[in-house]
Amino acid sequence: MRNVKVAIWGFGAMGRGVGAMLLKKKGVEITGVINRRSNLGKEIHELLGVERKDHPAVTITNNVEEVIFHKSCDVVVICTDSFTKDSYDKIKLALENKLNVVSTAEEFAFPQAQNPELTASLDKIARENGVTALGTGINPGFILDYLIVALTGTCEEVTSIAAQRVNDLSPFGPAVMHEQGVGITPETYRERMAANDLAGHVGFPESIAMVAEALGWKLEKVEQTKDPIISNTHREGPYATVEPGNLAGIRQQGYGYVNGEVKIHMDHPQQCLPHIEGTNTGDYIQIKGTPNISMAITPEIPGGIGTISMSVNMIPHVINAAPGVVTMLDLPVPRAIMGDFRHMIKKLD
Amino acid sequence: MRNVKVAIWGFGAMGRGVGAMLLKKKGVEITGVINRRSNLGKEIHELLGVERKDHPAVTITNNVEEVIFHKSCDVVVICTDSFTKDSYDKIKLALENKLNVVSTAEEFAFPQAQNPELTASLDKIARENGVTALGTGINPGFILDYLIVALTGTCEEVTSIAAQRVNDLSPFGPAVMHEQGVGITPETYRERMAANDLAGHVGFPESIAMVAEALGWKLEKVEQTKDPIISNTHREGPYATVEPGNLAGIRQQGYGYVNGEVKIHMDHPQQCLPHIEGTNTGDYIQIKGTPNISMAITPEIPGGIGTISMSVNMIPHVINAAPGVVTMLDLPVPRAIMGDFRHMIKKLD
Repeated sequence: MRNVKVAIWGFGAMGRGVGAMLLKKKGVEITGVINRRSNLGKEIHELLGVERKDHPAVTITNNVEEVIFHKSCDVVVICTDSFTKDSYDKIKLALENKLNVVSTAEEFAFPQAQNPELTASLDKIARENGVTALGTGINPGFILDYLIVALTGTCEEVTSIAAQRVNDLSPFGPAVMHEQGVGITPETYRERMAANDLAGHVGFPESIAMVAEALGWKLEKVEQTKDPIISNTHREGPYATVEPGNLAGIRQQGYGYVNGEVKIHMDHPQQCLPHIEGTNTGDYIQIKGTPNISMAITPEIPGGIGTISMSVNMIPHVINAAPGVVTMLDLPVPRAIMGDFRHMIKKLD
Repeated sequence: MRNVKVAIWGFGAMGRGVGAMLLKKKGVEITGVINRRSNLGKEIHELLGVERKDHPAVTITNNVEEVIFHKSCDVVVICTDSFTKDSYDKIKLALENKLNVVSTAEEFAFPQAQNPELTASLDKIARENGVTALGTGINPGFILDYLIVALTGTCEEVTSIAAQRVNDLSPFGPAVMHEQGVGITPETYRERMAANDLAGHVGFPESIAMVAEALGWKLEKVEQTKDPIISNTHREGPYATVEPGNLAGIRQQGYGYVNGEVKIHMDHPQQCLPHIEGTNTGDYIQIKGTPNISMAITPEIPGGIGTISMSVNMIPHVINAAPGVVTMLDLPVPRAIMGDFRHMIKKLD
C-alpha cells in the first residue's frame, strides 16, 4: 500500500514543526514544501536534521505549481495565515486541485463565525472536487472549544461556561513579544490599542461560536476586551525584558451572549513569565449545569506543539471525511497517531 | 417536522434517568418503555412527576412487541445489562426492526475487546438493516477512554498513559453496596473474591482496548487486580455502614501491555465516603509524551448523571451515523443538547 502523501505550505515555526513530526511517523511522506522566502532550495531532512532513509528528497520551493497540482498529494497542511480571507486563495487552489486541506489559520477553525460567505464558497468548491477542508489547532480547535464541548456531553443541561487559558509567552520569539505587547509601557499600550496594532489572541469569536453551535444555543453577539497585565517585578525572558510598571502581556476576554445573557466567558491572559508573580499556568474549564464540572490541565498544553500535533493528527480524519468545509465538531475524536497512518485511512486509492 | 422518536428498554435507575432527561428536551418524544417487572401499566409522566403537556401518554409494558416493531422509533436506548452477551438478543431484535440502538452495557462501549464474534454478528445485522448501534456511558465511554484519546490529539507522541477515577459510592443504593463489597469484613472479601462474587467495575478491558486502538498500539494483554480498601474509621452512609478494619470499598486496577510493557494503567478505587479519610474524589489523566499532560476534574463527573447524559446526547449522532456497530471513536464529539433534537439530525424521514 502506498504512503499517505502530505504537502506543507508555509515553513515557519508551525510548518517546520509539522514537517519534523511527519518525518517521525509511519506510512506517511512529504511530497513538497512551499515557503515564500527563507530556506529556498534547501532539502528538508538536512534542514531539520533528520535522517532521510528511504524517504524522497524534498526541496523547499516558492513555486506553488511545483507542489500544488492535480492530485499531487492527499492533504496540504497550510500554515501561513491567521485569517480566513488571507488564506482563501491558497485553500481554494488546493481544493480545485482535488487536495484535502488542513489549515492552522485560527479563523478557519470555525470560519462560518466571521466569514460565512467565504466559507460557503470554499464549501461549494470542496464538494465539487470531492475533498475536505478543516481548520484546527490547540486554540481555537481544542482547549477553548472542542474540549469544552466534549465535557458537556456528560451533562443533562448546561447553564453557563467559563474557561481560562493561562500561558507563558516567554518561549516565543521576538515577533510574538511584539504582537502581544510584552515589555511596552502603558502609554505605548494605549497608542497601539488606538491604532489596532496589538494582535492578541485570534480565535475567540470562532471558539465561542463553535461551542454555541454545538450546544444549540443561538448566539446573539460576541464581545472582546483586552486589558494590560502590568508587571510588579522585573521579568527577564529570552526574547523580552519587562520593567515594573510596564506590560508583562495582555489579558484578553471574550463574552458570548445568548438570550441577552453571557453564557460563555473565555479568559486568556498571555504574558511573559507569569510564575514570577505567583500565577500558575494552565487550562481551566468550568461548566455550570447538571452536573457542574471543574477541569484543570496544569501546566497548560503548550501552544506550539499542540497546534502542530492537532494539524498532523487530524490528517486521516480529513482524508476520510465527507466533502466540504468541516470543523472539529464534525469529525471523529483527535488522537495521537502512534501506528501507521495508512491503517487509519478508509480508502487509499 | 416530526419529533425524534425514542424507546427505552429497561426502567431502572438508568432508564428512568434517560426518560426524565428526554422529557425535558425539545424535538424528541418517548414512544414506549419496556420494563421486566416493576411499574407495569404506569404512565411515565405520572411516575416521573413531569407534566405531560402535548406529549403522548406512555404506559410501561413488559410486552416487547408493543414497543419494538418495524420502524416503531428512531432509536432504542437499552439500559438493561452490563455484558454484551446478556444484551445481544435485545440489540439484535432492535436492529432487525430497523431501529438504531444506544446501549449502556459497559462491555458494549467497545464490544470487540471481549466479544469479537457477537460484535461481528451484530455489525452484519445492523448493516443489513441500515441502522447503527453504539455503546456509551461515563465509564467506559468517556472518562477513562474518550477523554484520554481526545487529549492525546494534542501530542506529537505518547509513551504511556495513567488515569484514575476516584469516586464516592455512598449515594448509590444497597445493590451497589453489595456488589462493591462496602462494609464487609476482610474475611468475607476473600471468600467472595474466591467465589468471583465481587462485581467491581465492568469496563477496563474495553477502555484499555479503545485507547490502544485509537492510538494504533497493538495491545498484547490486559490484566486486572482488585484490592480491598480497608477503612480506618467508622463510616456511615445512607445505604451502608463501615466499621474500622472492614472494607470501605475496592480498588480496581487495569494494565494494558504493548510490546511487553504496561503502556496504559487505569486505577479506579470505589468506596463509601472517601473524604472521611482525606481522599478527594476526581478524574485524573496523566499522559507521558510530547508534551506531558496532567488533567484533573474535581470532583469526579458523577457516574449516574454522566451515563444518562451520554446516552441521550449521543442519540442524534447515532441516527446520523453510517450503519453498523460503532464506538465513541467513530462518531463526532458528544455535546449537551440544549436546543432542538431535530436540528441535529441530518435526515429525518
